[in-house]
Amino acid sequence: MRISVCRKEHFNAAHRLYNPGWSDEKNEAVFGKCNNPNFHGHNYDLVVRLIGEPDPDTGYVYDLKKLKDLIRENVINKFDHKNLNLDTVEFKKLNPTAENIAITIYNILRTKIDDKYEIKITLYETERNFVEYPY
Amino acid sequence: MRISVCRKEHFNAAHRLYNPGWSDEKNEAVFGKCNNPNFHGHNYDLVVRLIGEPDPDTGYVYDLKKLKDLIRENVINKFDHKNLNLDTVEFKKLNPTAENIAITIYNILRTKIDDKYEIKITLYETERNFVEYPY
Amino acid sequence: MRISVCRKEHFNAAHRLYNPGWSDEKNEAVFGKCNNPNFHGHNYDLVVRLIGEPDPDTGYVYDLKKLKDLIRENVINKFDHKNLNLDTVEFKKLNPTAENIAITIYNILRTKIDDKYEIKITLYETERNFVEYPY
Amino acid sequence: MRISVCRKEHFNAAHRLYNPGWSDEKNEAVFGKCNNPNFHGHNYDLVVRLIGEPDPDTGYVYDLKKLKDLIRENVINKFDHKNLNLDTVEFKKLNPTAENIAITIYNILRTKIDDKYEIKITLYETERNFVEYPY
Amino acid sequence: MRISVCRKEHFNAAHRLYNPGWSDEKNEAVFGKCNNPNFHGHNYDLVVRLIGEPDPDTGYVYDLKKLKDLIRENVINKFDHKNLNLDTVEFKKLNPTAENIAITIYNILRTKIDDKYEIKITLYETERNFVEYPY
Amino acid sequence: MRISVCRKEHFNAAHRLYNPGWSDEKNEAVFGKCNNPNFHGHNYDLVVRLIGEPDPDTGYVYDLKKLKDLIRENVINKFDHKNLNLDTVEFKKLNPTAENIAITIYNILRTKIDDKYEIKITLYETERNFVEYPY
Repeated sequence: MRISVCRKEHFNAAHRLYNPGWSDEKNEAVFGKCNNPNFHGHNYDLVVRLIGEPDPDTGYVYDLKKLKDLIRENVINKFDHKNLNLDTVEFKKLNPTAENIAITIYNILRTKIDDKYEIKITLYETERNFVEYPY
Repeated sequence: MRISVCRKEHFNAAHRLYNPGWSDEKNEAVFGKCNNPNFHGHNYDLVVRLIGEPDPDTGYVYDLKKLKDLIRENVINKFDHKNLNLDTVEFKKLNPTAENIAITIYNILRTKIDDKYEIKITLYETERNFVEYPY
Repeated sequence: MRISVCRKEHFNAAHRLYNPGWSDEKNEAVFGKCNNPNFHGHNYDLVVRLIGEPDPDTGYVYDLKKLKDLIRENVINKFDHKNLNLDTVEFKKLNPTAENIAITIYNILRTKIDDKYEIKITLYETERNFVEYPY
Repeated sequence: MRISVCRKEHFNAAHRLYNPGWSDEKNEAVFGKCNNPNFHGHNYDLVVRLIGEPDPDTGYVYDLKKLKDLIRENVINKFDHKNLNLDTVEFKKLNPTAENIAITIYNILRTKIDDKYEIKITLYETERNFVEYPY
Repeated sequence: MRISVCRKEHFNAAHRLYNPGWSDEKNEAVFGKCNNPNFHGHNYDLVVRLIGEPDPDTGYVYDLKKLKDLIRENVINKFDHKNLNLDTVEFKKLNPTAENIAITIYNILRTKIDDKYEIKITLYETERNFVEYPY
Repeated sequence: MRISVCRKEHFNAAHRLYNPGWSDEKNEAVFGKCNNPNFHGHNYDLVVRLIGEPDPDTGYVYDLKKLKDLIRENVINKFDHKNLNLDTVEFKKLNPTAENIAITIYNILRTKIDDKYEIKITLYETERNFVEYPY
């Protein structure tokens, strides 16, 4: 009787796609306008999904108010209104693609949420470009 | 060659989260403002997904017009513009969390739809809080 | 050089449409399923629009962070997760139609916001039914 | 470490649901107003999902700019502002239900994208009627 | 104390942009892919806005349930799942641009709704292309 | 017989709110997290509205395909994937608040569009914060 419960949050951040092991020309060729050295930015929409069994006393799989607070404390406060490349430890060396941001958020929340829950992250970089981890 | 077909419907209802086996204090502590004795309410968005094989004569897995009518007759007419706790037999004793509403809708539709179709229910309590059953 | 700035917030509430000066039959005939004595509910989306001139020092017409806080303190805290008919002084005697809720929110905010700003309220009762005041 | 990356595109097309092996009466009975001989139309929203492993050098599973171009060249240019029944080879004999359009788009893209990627197609015929293939 | 009340409906139709007084070349040059002789189509979203004074007995400017029925009887039944150029008297000679469809819907509803209400029509041909009449 | 036609476009940009005539403390006090020296970013949604009379030969107020191209050439190419403060001449000295961005876009398009059309700009910085100019 597995059921998933989902909470949507958002954050606004600047970033730049860049591989420091490559020349400027190769970075420009691969990442195009996303490689702009002065950064660009997005409104990121984040959906966190927990999969588990409902508690018979509450009817909850997980209190979504608590999930909201957990996401805000551990993810939104870290990334909102930040430059992902310059202001965060997570992306000092890791290229902040949507894929890597989703994996990073998964790893952060995985340490905060009981292992009896499966976790899935959906991250919308724009309304038209989005990723899901793990699939 | 399994394919899923989905239909979105909605209903507006009042509810209150409450465990009658608990004290008022415990209900307040666990359910917070969702425990308001005078109820609050939501516009629920419901997505019903059927998974099956397309019929070679029609190209349909399931006629979505028939699925729409089936959902309206068996789910929407029962819950729309109702108080889930007071006006429905389903939630007289069952706490109307999003999880329990989704499971209840699944159970209702499971008896109306041929077993050759797998069914999945997604229920949005708000744009930011939603559940899926089964996962 | 008039410009409008808008902030969207939401609240979830129960209500019932009802005119106490009418018979039950007339209430039922006029308000239909919205007259359910046990209430139903909605996710209300609220857009507050202020019209004024940008301040040359800030580039702001009005700080939207302040507008958000003002709306939450004076409107959302009052109506969210409440039964509009039973839990609020505003709708003890006033029928909580979308029109009357929008006018009430306008009147609340009008006392909190400097008269140099014009105010407009858009209230979505559902995605398909909404009102704007004043027009 | 499988992750999915998704790109949303859209096209506007006319179509008619029709089985040439049936009488007009049977077509009308089965397909109703979708059988209108003069056609009707839709704004189709298409989500293409690729599932694979992120490349360690780029942080990409697949460059979404390239996926966008691939979809536009092979799907959108073929179907956008077209009559699916009359203007396309794919639906000359195949009934253009949402299911069949999704399967057709899957088959087109399957020949253009490396087999190491799993592909999934979600097609919205309207906001309320949509299909996913394969499930 | 003027307030506006709005109802959103939708219809799906095929159409072709075409001026019969012009050569095929000129039609092609002006209307591009919208001139496809075999038609294309859209999911049209329609918002009908009525502006008036709330009735003190009901709190309604206009019963939105009645407005919904009025729109469905007079507009949706006429245009939904139709070919606007071939199946309707309104667009036999009038080019079915979004502008002309909006004006036509306005004229239809103007004869059905008391003159004490101002009417405004917003018509979305796509999410990105829309018109409002009168402005 | 005035009618408005609207086109929605979007761009993704980084920015920082900052008044160079103020101390860092005052900038921080007034602009809060929007003052982050390393910038943050947004997906901006832009609606351009032109108000005019339909041409009797085309049924168009303005060809929305041409409006799309005009916006992309003059606005999107200038601001998309850019740092508004560092990469644009418009915001070298002007604080890139939503109000100032909307006024700037209005001024750019006003020089490109015939004076017989009235222009209005709506700019969404987030789904919840947006501005309209002129009002």
